Amino acid sequence: MTDMTNPLDRQRYPVDEWALVETEFSPADMGRTETLFAVGNGYFGMRGNVTEGREGHTHGTFINGLHETWPIRHAEEAYGFARVGQTIVNAPDAKIMRVYVDDEPFLISEAEVLDYSRRLDFRTGVLSRDLVWRTPSGKRVLIQASRMVSFSDRHLAVIQYDVTLLDADASVVVSSQILNRQDGTDEYDRAKSTTAPEQFDPRKAESLTERVLQPRFKRADGGRYMLGYRTTNSNMTLVCGADHSIETENAWEESSHIADDLAKHVYRIKAKANKPIRITKMVSYHSSRGVPTRELADRCDRTLDRARAEGAETAVARQRSWLDDYWQRTDVELHGQPELQQAMRWNLFQLAQASARADGQGVAAKGVSGTGYGGHYFWDTEIYVLPVLSYTSPIAARNALRFRQSILGESRTRAKELNQHGALFPWRTISGQESSAYYAAGTAQYHIDADISYALSQYLLATGDRDFLARGAIDILVETARMWADLGFWRTNGDSAFHIHGVTGPDEYTTVVNDNLYTNVMARSNLGAAAHAVRTLRRDDPVAHSRMAKRLALHDGEVDEWLRAAERMYIPFDKTVGIHPQDAQFLEKEVWDLPNTPPDKRPLLLHYHPLVIYRFQVLKQADVVLALFLQGDLFTDEQKLADFDYYDPLTTGDSTLSAVVQSIIAAEVGYQELAMKYFMAGLFVDLADLHHNTSDGVHVASTGGMWSALVFGFGGLRDHNGNLTLDPRLPADWDGITFRLTVKGSRMRVDLVQESVTLTIEEGTEVSIAVRGVHHTVEAGSPVVVSLAHQGPRLKGTPSSKRIEGERRADGSVITATVPISWPIGDDLPELTAVD
Amino acid sequence: MTDMTNPLDRQRYPVDEWALVETEFSPADMGRTETLFAVGNGYFGMRGNVTEGREGHTHGTFINGLHETWPIRHAEEAYGFARVGQTIVNAPDAKIMRVYVDDEPFLISEAEVLDYSRRLDFRTGVLSRDLVWRTPSGKRVLIQASRMVSFSDRHLAVIQYDVTLLDADASVVVSSQILNRQDGTDEYDRAKSTTAPEQFDPRKAESLTERVLQPRFKRADGGRYMLGYRTTNSNMTLVCGADHSIETENAWEESSHIADDLAKHVYRIKAKANKPIRITKMVSYHSSRGVPTRELADRCDRTLDRARAEGAETAVARQRSWLDDYWQRTDVELHGQPELQQAMRWNLFQLAQASARADGQGVAAKGVSGTGYGGHYFWDTEIYVLPVLSYTSPIAARNALRFRQSILGESRTRAKELNQHGALFPWRTISGQESSAYYAAGTAQYHIDADISYALSQYLLATGDRDFLARGAIDILVETARMWADLGFWRTNGDSAFHIHGVTGPDEYTTVVNDNLYTNVMARSNLGAAAHAVRTLRRDDPVAHSRMAKRLALHDGEVDEWLRAAERMYIPFDKTVGIHPQDAQFLEKEVWDLPNTPPDKRPLLLHYHPLVIYRFQVLKQADVVLALFLQGDLFTDEQKLADFDYYDPLTTGDSTLSAVVQSIIAAEVGYQELAMKYFMAGLFVDLADLHHNTSDGVHVASTGGMWSALVFGFGGLRDHNGNLTLDPRLPADWDGITFRLTVKGSRMRVDLVQESVTLTIEEGTEVSIAVRGVHHTVEAGSPVVVSLAHQGPRLKGTPSSKRIEGERRADGSVITATVPISWPIGDDLPELTAVD
Repeated sequence: MTDMTNPLDRQRYPVDEWALVETEFSPADMGRTETLFAVGNGYFGMRGNVTEGREGHTHGTFINGLHETWPIRHAEEAYGFARVGQTIVNAPDAKIMRVYVDDEPFLISEAEVLDYSRRLDFRTGVLSRDLVWRTPSGKRVLIQASRMVSFSDRHLAVIQYDVTLLDADASVVVSSQILNRQDGTDEYDRAKSTTAPEQFDPRKAESLTERVLQPRFKRADGGRYMLGYRTTNSNMTLVCGADHSIETENAWEESSHIADDLAKHVYRIKAKANKPIRITKMVSYHSSRGVPTRELADRCDRTLDRARAEGAETAVARQRSWLDDYWQRTDVELHGQPELQQAMRWNLFQLAQASARADGQGVAAKGVSGTGYGGHYFWDTEIYVLPVLSYTSPIAARNALRFRQSILGESRTRAKELNQHGALFPWRTISGQESSAYYAAGTAQYHIDADISYALSQYLLATGDRDFLARGAIDILVETARMWADLGFWRTNGDSAFHIHGVTGPDEYTTVVNDNLYTNVMARSNLGAAAHAVRTLRRDDPVAHSRMAKRLALHDGEVDEWLRAAERMYIPFDKTVGIHPQDAQFLEKEVWDLPNTPPDKRPLLLHYHPLVIYRFQVLKQADVVLALFLQGDLFTDEQKLADFDYYDPLTTGDSTLSAVVQSIIAAEVGYQELAMKYFMAGLFVDLADLHHNTSDGVHVASTGGMWSALVFGFGGLRDHNGNLTLDPRLPADWDGITFRLTVKGSRMRVDLVQESVTLTIEEGTEVSIAVRGVHHTVEAGSPVVVSLAHQGPRLKGTPSSKRIEGERRADGSVITATVPISWPIGDDLPELTAVD
Repeated sequence: MTDMTNPLDRQRYPVDEWALVETEFSPADMGRTETLFAVGNGYFGMRGNVTEGREGHTHGTFINGLHETWPIRHAEEAYGFARVGQTIVNAPDAKIMRVYVDDEPFLISEAEVLDYSRRLDFRTGVLSRDLVWRTPSGKRVLIQASRMVSFSDRHLAVIQYDVTLLDADASVVVSSQILNRQDGTDEYDRAKSTTAPEQFDPRKAESLTERVLQPRFKRADGGRYMLGYRTTNSNMTLVCGADHSIETENAWEESSHIADDLAKHVYRIKAKANKPIRITKMVSYHSSRGVPTRELADRCDRTLDRARAEGAETAVARQRSWLDDYWQRTDVELHGQPELQQAMRWNLFQLAQASARADGQGVAAKGVSGTGYGGHYFWDTEIYVLPVLSYTSPIAARNALRFRQSILGESRTRAKELNQHGALFPWRTISGQESSAYYAAGTAQYHIDADISYALSQYLLATGDRDFLARGAIDILVETARMWADLGFWRTNGDSAFHIHGVTGPDEYTTVVNDNLYTNVMARSNLGAAAHAVRTLRRDDPVAHSRMAKRLALHDGEVDEWLRAAERMYIPFDKTVGIHPQDAQFLEKEVWDLPNTPPDKRPLLLHYHPLVIYRFQVLKQADVVLALFLQGDLFTDEQKLADFDYYDPLTTGDSTLSAVVQSIIAAEVGYQELAMKYFMAGLFVDLADLHHNTSDGVHVASTGGMWSALVFGFGGLRDHNGNLTLDPRLPADWDGITFRLTVKGSRMRVDLVQESVTLTIEEGTEVSIAVRGVHHTVEAGSPVVVSLAHQGPRLKGTPSSKRIEGERRADGSVITATVPISWPIGDDLPELTAVD
């Protein structure tokens, strides 16, 4: 078990508030470190592979959206099952710089390495590795390698490779390569060679067994080479190229070699001791859904020409400047806690690496850092990433929403296949088509429609960007509202409420249920937001409204229907137990005996048949509890406590999406120790590889979630319907935290300490916010200081100690049972906050 | 639409009470007629392909249990998903007799055929086809082909091919072949060449794309040839051989040819006009799970030696004699109704063809007549076939149950994979391993355990075969009871009943539900039967009991637990609507608008995503209504009527398993016209191809179900807990019916007419039966005549007219809704009939 008070080996990873630093290389955990030291800009990314190639867990270079398709073959077919599998392509690897001294190759795991340090700097955005190699003949060689993927120049990476002989002269050869490993071309690259045969794991990518990248183009000329490909089935194009230069006082010569899957530029240097050699490799990737490779090659040339002309220093300076801006908007400070500060900044840095230049693409579950989940886009983006971006990098949030807008056509088609009106967004996709082959935990998660609408609404409220809505984003709201209005139904006998049946909520350990609470409250919000948006647009911009109404054939009756459905949406509530059941039948199930489930049976999904898991009250991840956060104004404090008390002991956290949400609500209801436990579990999920799959890539949703856990959880911020409120929950042993919010163009800094919170406008004019019920307008130049009498309720113990106890069943075995809770709960749900 | 009053074209298929006769060949519906004219004995079967090969929809020869395996590749993996796909192998085709006259081949669809008649005789068990061919040069040739698969000699088929020139001399060549079409070896065989590209249909077999039969052995010598194979993955062996003889006064010569996939024996005859040529081909198939092909070849030799020595006449005579016995036990007479009589006997003949010599194998959904459902064994056998066999061919029922006993090991393993104690029988299998790749409508159908126990209990009650139980069949009851006791749970709050969650009932249009009524009542019966069997065995045969208890590590507490669970089994009942819900949540779902679903959207499973179907109250097949039949003593007459009224209008009958059950209960509750409608739908399901997939093979369960529909439905027989009762429901316009029952070794004939029923012992000593509550012991030589005042209640109209009416939903569209029924329903369930 990982010691959560000190989850990182600080000998190997010393604390640095602005960098992840490694002082020792280990071939044993390359999969993990390749992910932790990956660099990327949201468009493309390079895993932290050893620069010299050779050894590696997964040699990986990923371009957002560059995918191959394959026909999904279902073992047993049914109508409407997803047809088109999509898998991110591992692009040709331009990271490789092989070095030979006196013809001896440098192989990090076999070489005698005298000194070693690797550093991913969050302020410069550069990954650098310095080491001294003692060659078999005893010569010491200083090798300094660095790489960066430019945030400002979307298609550019810069690699520098410095070699200095410390003792004696020698012949030095540096071979800079681009290698397409598609068919295992290079026998020297031993990726995964040491790992055991793989067990099934649905979280990994489908592996592509046929050749994906068909060579279409190659060129080598004057220190620049380029390789062009077209994917076999998806018909996408890709060109990658590199441009080389050398600075040294030593004598050298160069040569190039080009083949379909390998480009080499080789420097042969007669190196003198202490005369440094610096090789600079500018790399460019361009890809497209159909532009010919020749055209992409021109684009590569333009990128490389400019980069070469400006030089590496300019690229590095721009990177630093871009990140200065980023941190100004995004940084979160944990006063006097350098270990946590470092981890938090690593997470926020990953957020930028996954999303900054995604531009028209989505943000994949692993960003551009690995192949996990096949490079697919999920609801993670909308629920865990976009809320952060909306308050820190609104343009990135807007771009991610534009991606959803761009796949409305496919989503309409999918809704039709599922017999529904409107649009049903794919549960997992790259191309826009549904790619989820297991519908019970895929297509059945209709809530993705509401998740996307939620992210759009939050973006609009945070930015006030009405123009975006008028330019077509409103179509998302209308088409999703239509889907809900059609999917649900009015029960004619009984309660005459609006019900939604046969769906799966966020918790995938229960599937295809009736009236999932999360789905229903989120759909309600979706319906209300759509009605509000349509009516506001009609009032404010009749021309845009009428254009939209015509485009979507929208009639007034529909909007009325949405509001009726929202008003009468069925919200399951169990008066006896005093909680919101996860779905209409959840409480009728047996309770899984989680305390007595051995660790080797976790996560459950890898050790139990779905039928077994589905039969019990047990959660993969927060479901009702997520609703308590996202739609917190619909629930009373007492309900939140009761619900959290009930669900927290049933939640395995087998999904990394869970901890951050549990942390936020634990903080709100008063379980401060528990909030901290979940916060730490999220903060170190990758850094300490808590889920044992960091090698597949960064858990991007969790990195976004850490900002939320800090700002919404300990910070106590809420933004329901655009009303900013603050009710802080600073942990008792923390000095303070500082975070920033950009709201409608103005950036406010929040300095929270135990006794007070200080609100300061750093940029722009003013921000309105209520602190514990008292409204403040914070204006530029006039910081507001609010005294705090406390940091919220403090509950002792954990929910599990209160809510579960052993009982004996008929056959004598002990089961865990739910015990009715003791405090009074209101019978009625809060009214729907009017949305219009 | 098929005219159900006269579903067969009587020009083409004239009425014959003891045969299916075809007077005209059509290439348009070969798939259907190949199935209708198939011959088989339950061990192996030959489709009714044209003897000369060439044209065909599916050239098919199937050996029960001869299957290939393949790894099931799930598009998205999960723990415990079925791993081993199993598909019946299309064995080498020994039916082929090609004929050439003056070197012109006979091709039935292109030839000028002057006369044509094909006849499948239910009494002789021989398929014969007579025709006159006018060759292109104008010569008329009489060709008479016949084939039979022996019921008495399990591995033998006899083919006779007679050619007589009617006008003039000619050279005649007859080429008798065995052809392994595995790789499409014969370009002249145009199977399926005229059909459109196939649409997906989950009811069809998975097609095997790799070579399945690896040649291991071949031999040709003295008019006999033999081909031996081993299957690529499943490692099964197969040898098929044939032995030839010729009778003619013409001069002839013969030659043989043998290759890996083709054996030929060719007769060249200098034929004179009116000098007949008769070629007899004895065919033998032997297969095994591992015996080497050389050993199987020896077995083939022995079969062929004996058959040759005895001659074809003996084989034909034995076939006739076997069938005489069969009909004596099995025949059902419909007085004065030759059309229905013919159809009924065709169905009963299929029952023999599917089950007679299955011996240690199961009875596949299509018997040995086609590839539908991959040659798999399902619950169909136990619920639709075994009850018939138990009363007519008990040895065949016993053999089928022994098959289940033989796969107890695999079923224990499967239970473990599903986290349960005891044994869980595979939903679909050939080898014993679960092969159902879609768990929601597969593995989740836990009721298969109860279905098998039910069939075993009914067999024991019908035969009194205690020896079978003591010899190990009791293990089935014990291991299935254990599964139920472990699967279900005691709800600790609320009703303290025994609940079974997360299962699918027989109706596959609703899956993975809680407390499926059918499952719960059948599990209750299973638990009771197991307890009863264990206690009876302890009393009657303490040695066998103690051996069993040791073998299964059974302790007394378990039996008590089974009885407790049975006694407190939760039986869902809705007091408001007054019916038994199909499952705990069934009535909360929206009602599917079946009357307004267009015919081109049927069956629903081919036109709607499962998620859509599952969301509604709509049934693929009888579910509660099946429970009303199988466990009829648990329900009052009023409950049966209410339940039938409710479910019948919601039932699509998209499964052929439904009509027979609906017919039986419609007859019982008093919907006589409806009972007749469903009876006809079952009787002609294949003969009139009502489900458009007869080409995939005979619906064997439905053929068994027809006996049930007549005996249990119109005959009104019931046998709950072994108590035979009769409450007839003879249709008003029928003169009478006669059927036979073999009960504990005595055979009783039942002659039912409108005014009375006469019970006569045909063989054995006596049978006990109650007619409308009055008990009779019918003794040999003393027929009992009971007067009947009526034939049960007669209700007017149909359930649909009473139970469904239009309502308007919020958006203005009309939905169909359930209307509470008007007659009083008792609140309480009947007590469990004591099983010990």
